[in-house]
Amino acid sequence: MKKNNSNKNVIWHQSMITKESRQKKHKHKSLIIWFTGLSGSGKSTIANALQNKLYENNVSVYLLDGDNLRHGINKNLTFTEDDRKENIRRTAEIGKLFVDAGIVVLAALISPFQEDRMNARILFEVDEFIEVYVKCSLHECELRDPKGLYKKARKGEIKQFTGIDQPYEVPKNPEIIINTNELSIEECVKIISSYLYEKVHLMHHKGGDHP
Amino acid sequence: MKKNNSNKNVIWHQSMITKESRQKKHKHKSLIIWFTGLSGSGKSTIANALQNKLYENNVSVYLLDGDNLRHGINKNLTFTEDDRKENIRRTAEIGKLFVDAGIVVLAALISPFQEDRMNARILFEVDEFIEVYVKCSLHECELRDPKGLYKKARKGEIKQFTGIDQPYEVPKNPEIIINTNELSIEECVKIISSYLYEKVHLMHHKGGDHP
Repeated sequence: MKKNNSNKNVIWHQSMITKESRQKKHKHKSLIIWFTGLSGSGKSTIANALQNKLYENNVSVYLLDGDNLRHGINKNLTFTEDDRKENIRRTAEIGKLFVDAGIVVLAALISPFQEDRMNARILFEVDEFIEVYVKCSLHECELRDPKGLYKKARKGEIKQFTGIDQPYEVPKNPEIIINTNELSIEECVKIISSYLYEKVHLMHHKGGDHP
Repeated sequence: MKKNNSNKNVIWHQSMITKESRQKKHKHKSLIIWFTGLSGSGKSTIANALQNKLYENNVSVYLLDGDNLRHGINKNLTFTEDDRKENIRRTAEIGKLFVDAGIVVLAALISPFQEDRMNARILFEVDEFIEVYVKCSLHECELRDPKGLYKKARKGEIKQFTGIDQPYEVPKNPEIIINTNELSIEECVKIISSYLYEKVHLMHHKGGDHP
């Protein structure tokens, strides 16, 4: 057996696999699409539908859903302001790892505060962070109430609930606004995928469906 | 504009993109290879070299390096026992997301305690977690001391340093043991990639180099 008791072995062959190399391999840019909006506005649904569409178009794509993350990496966080901040920070940092891995990340979190969203944004390069404001009236979200959370919040059974006893700060300059009071899920997905195609050149035309 | 003020829109088209579907697309299984060992044992170097080899063989692979993560998602953690636990927990949870995304994850962390490594392991399915004990004598690691940390630890400038004033619990049943006192980096990589090929059937032979 060879004996290699030198530092030169330990620094041997460091990774030269860059984000750019991975993007080239995947044949598309990597970036994060950050969905923000009230509970029930349609973030997860639209992100899921968009994920399906991108996946079918051979985009390497992965969805980080706020609710799901709270069962895993963020399960030790509550809904206090500090923990909400940390929830968003961790999600953004994980998103950054996926973007570094050449993947298009969809992040769906209420993320009610401008400051937290800005802190997420600055982790990325300018053209890597696409904020999608999923706009929907509180009235409509309460009517939908898919998880029955508004009902509980109105009864006071849930505290610090965005839109009820905690504010939602409307994004100031999101890249995309989609109004789910007025648009179907399919229309919302089309708006975002058109943006990705035209503005970000996410997908090259390579024989698949035009997004 | 169509009005869609119903719950049925919100639950429309949930993701059906499973881990299995992603694995099929990538033409290989996804799993995590967990490198544990003393500082300076060669974890990061071997993981980097293995990553290069897998990448060249068209495996979707990503390296989670403990040191690098401490500049991002884990930057709010110290080296106390609780924070080390949390460091490992978060890394394992991130690894799980990548495995769910169909990616082969390499995680390189000292991870000195059996219990923490076991907590990481149980997040995964039985054949998804491959523990690689990067074995190297403390004497050899101190000779290498690639980051000058042992010198500082011996002077007492760093506290709770594994191998000096904090124990390293040798893995009881790791899938792979590689001894970097005796083997070259290239030999170490070959052992792991042979294991991945023969035991886990990570790679199908598809025209590329045999790993």
